Amino acid sequence: MKYVKELISYNNAKKIVFNKLEEFLSDKFLEVDIFKALGKICFEDIYSPCNLPMFNKSAMDGYAVIAEDTFGASETNPIILNLVKEGHLNEEEAFRLSTGMKLPKNSNAVVMKEYTKDHETFVEVISGVYPNENVSKIGEDLKKGDIVLKKGETITPYHIALLSSIGMKKIKCYSLNIGIISTGDELLDIEDLIDLKQLEENEMIVNSNVLMLSDLVRELGLTVKPYKKAPDNPEFIEKAIKLALLENDIVVTTGGTSVGDRDYTIEKISEMGNLLFHGVQLRPGRPAGFLECEFNGKKRLIFVLSGYPVASGIQFELFIRSYFKPRKSINLPLNRNIASSLGRTDILRVKIVEEDGISKIEPLRISGSGILSSMTLASGYIIIEENLEGYEKEDIVKVYLL
Amino acid sequence: MKYVKELISYNNAKKIVFNKLEEFLSDKFLEVDIFKALGKICFEDIYSPCNLPMFNKSAMDGYAVIAEDTFGASETNPIILNLVKEGHLNEEEAFRLSTGMKLPKNSNAVVMKEYTKDHETFVEVISGVYPNENVSKIGEDLKKGDIVLKKGETITPYHIALLSSIGMKKIKCYSLNIGIISTGDELLDIEDLIDLKQLEENEMIVNSNVLMLSDLVRELGLTVKPYKKAPDNPEFIEKAIKLALLENDIVVTTGGTSVGDRDYTIEKISEMGNLLFHGVQLRPGRPAGFLECEFNGKKRLIFVLSGYPVASGIQFELFIRSYFKPRKSINLPLNRNIASSLGRTDILRVKIVEEDGISKIEPLRISGSGILSSMTLASGYIIIEENLEGYEKEDIVKVYLL
Repeated sequence: MKYVKELISYNNAKKIVFNKLEEFLSDKFLEVDIFKALGKICFEDIYSPCNLPMFNKSAMDGYAVIAEDTFGASETNPIILNLVKEGHLNEEEAFRLSTGMKLPKNSNAVVMKEYTKDHETFVEVISGVYPNENVSKIGEDLKKGDIVLKKGETITPYHIALLSSIGMKKIKCYSLNIGIISTGDELLDIEDLIDLKQLEENEMIVNSNVLMLSDLVRELGLTVKPYKKAPDNPEFIEKAIKLALLENDIVVTTGGTSVGDRDYTIEKISEMGNLLFHGVQLRPGRPAGFLECEFNGKKRLIFVLSGYPVASGIQFELFIRSYFKPRKSINLPLNRNIASSLGRTDILRVKIVEEDGISKIEPLRISGSGILSSMTLASGYIIIEENLEGYEKEDIVKVYLL
Repeated sequence: MKYVKELISYNNAKKIVFNKLEEFLSDKFLEVDIFKALGKICFEDIYSPCNLPMFNKSAMDGYAVIAEDTFGASETNPIILNLVKEGHLNEEEAFRLSTGMKLPKNSNAVVMKEYTKDHETFVEVISGVYPNENVSKIGEDLKKGDIVLKKGETITPYHIALLSSIGMKKIKCYSLNIGIISTGDELLDIEDLIDLKQLEENEMIVNSNVLMLSDLVRELGLTVKPYKKAPDNPEFIEKAIKLALLENDIVVTTGGTSVGDRDYTIEKISEMGNLLFHGVQLRPGRPAGFLECEFNGKKRLIFVLSGYPVASGIQFELFIRSYFKPRKSINLPLNRNIASSLGRTDILRVKIVEEDGISKIEPLRISGSGILSSMTLASGYIIIEENLEGYEKEDIVKVYLL
C-alpha cells in the first residue's frame, strides 16, 4: 500500500493540519446574531466596552443609606433616617429601593427591608451596615477593558448572558461550510433504506459515516453539507469531490483511502492538489490523508478519512475537533497496565471509574476499527505517544473527555 | 420575606421536582428523524433488531480463504489456492474481496493482499492466517437484542452512527416546549437596546436572563419560547404567564421571586395552582419556587427562578439540567480548605488545575449571585451538602463538569 512508505508521525500530521487550518481560517468568520451564537466558536478576543454593573446597584430590597449613619443601630437603639425621593443623599437620609436599582449619589450601602420599619417620611434602622454592604459595586463583574471571551472559545449560555449584558448584539464567529462524502459500493444511504433484509440480501451496510461526520461538524457550530454516497467509480468520485469543492470550504471524505483495488478516492484526490500527507503512525486511524488545493480560484482543504467508522471518528476527533473545540482533559491515575507499540501513537478509548473514592481511568476492553460501540461506551480517550511502550497501573495520564 | 418561613432542603426540593418531572414527561415525546436527533434525549431504551455486522465481513483488501489451507505458508513455501468467483469456497480455493465485503460461505479468514501474488486463476499465499483473522465477525459490534441507547441518554454523533447502522430512521426523543419570562422594570430586551448610554441613563440592565435560559434549554435539545420582559405590574405578569402556559408545557420565570414590594411574579403564580415549594436552603439560588397547575385543561409546571443571573443559572442547572442531562462528574482532591454553613447546600464554582501532575479542584475566589464571570470562568462546580461545614485540603470531592 502506498501509504506504508510515507507514514508520518501523528504529531507531525497534527502540526501540518493545525498550521494549515490557522492560515486557511484567517478570513472565515461571520457576525452572528446573539440569539444564534450558542455553541459557535468565537473568532476574536472580546473586551468589555463598559463596567458591569454599569453603576452601583442594590443587591437587596431595602434602603440606600450612608453606612456611617447606621453604625450602632439595634432593636433597642434604632436609628432614624429621613426618607427622600431624589437621587442624592445627605447625612441621616435614606432612599427606598428594590433589588437591582441604582444607588443614589452619596449613598454607599443598603439596609435590608427586614431590618427596618418604614414610617412613610422616615425609616427606623435596627441593624447597622458597613460600607458596600448589599451593594453590587460598579465593575465587580467586569471592568471596562476586561477580556470577556477569547478567540477560539466555544460560546456557552453563560457567555451569552455576559455578552448581552455588555450590549453585544452580534458576535464574530468561525464560519465554514464542510462537505462530507462517503465512498463505497457497499454503502446504502439511510434515506434509501427500506428494511434490514435489503441490507442483508444485497450485502450492504448503511452509510453511517456521513451521518456521524455531519453531526460531528454540527457539534462544532459549523455548517455541514452531507452528500449521497459515491460508488467506487473513479469518474463518479471525481465529479462528487469537485461538486463538494465548489460548494464548501473544506471537504471530508471517508473510504477508499488505502490504495486498494477500489480505492479511487485517494487516487483522484491526489491529482487535485498538494497532498500534504497520506498515512499516519496512528492507531486507529492510519490511512488519514490531508490535501490543500485551489479550486475555481479558491483555496480548499480536503481531509481524507478512513472508511472504518471508529477510525474516521478518531481522525475527525484528532485533526478537526481538537483544533476547533479541544476536549476538556483531566489527569487521573490508570487502574491497570496498558501496552502499546513503539513508533506509533495509540488512541485508547477509556471509561472513568471510581476506585477507593477517587476517579480512575479504565481502558475499554473492546477495540477494533469496526466496533462503533467502543465510541458510544467510552467516556474519553487517552493518547499514548509513539515513544512510549505503554503505561503502568497508577501512572497518571491525561484523559480527554468525550 | 415569605419564603424564609418555608425554606426546604435542596435534597427535598430536588426530589419533588424530579418526581413531578418523571410523571409529567410520561407522554412528552416525538419521533425524531435521525438527521435531526443530535443532542436530543432518548425517550426509551433501544435494543438492536439485528446483529452488527449483519454478516462476516472482510476487514482488509485480500482473499477469503479457509484458514487451515494456509497454515505454514511462507515466501519460500507459498501455498497455491484456486480463485473462484462464487460465494462458496471448497478446500484449496480463495475468493478475491475488498474491505467490507461479505465473506463467501465456508471461508473463515482473509489473507491481506500484501501477502499474496495474484495469477488470475489462482493466488499464491506467502503468509498463513488463523481462523477469523482479518474478519469482522457477525455481531461483534452489536448482537441482536443488545441495548444500544438507554432512556435518558443524550444522542451523540457516535450513537447516530450506531443507530443508523441498525436501520433506525427515527428515534423517540423527549419533546417539550419551555417558555421563558423575565420580569423586572429595570430590564431591557436586547432587541430594544440602542447603545450602552441608553442603559446608563435609564438605569436599566439588559434582559440577559431570558437569553441565558433560552440557550440552557436549547442545550437540552428541547424547544424554547422566549418572551419579552414583563414589567413589575401584576396584571401584566398574570397575562404574560397565562399566555406562556397556553403556548408551552413548562414555564420558567426569573425575577420577582422574593415577595418584595415589586415581587408580583411569585404572588401571581401562587394563585394559579399548587405551589410545591418556594425557598430552598441553597446558596446561591435560595428563592427558587416550583408549582404545578392545570391550565386550559392541561397539566403545566412552572419553575420560579431568581432574578440574579448566577442564581437562576444554578437553579436551572440543579433542578432542570440535572434531570434531563446530568453533567459528567469526577472525583478529585481539593487543593485547599473550603468553609460552608451547616443547614444549607452550597454550590461552589471551581476550576480544575494541575498540581504534582494530577488534576485538583480549586474553588474560584469570585462569588456572589451577580458575578456572571464566575460561571464563564468555572470548569465545574461542587455541591457541599447541608450537613457539612466544608472540606479540607486533599479531601476527595465530586466535581460536576460544566
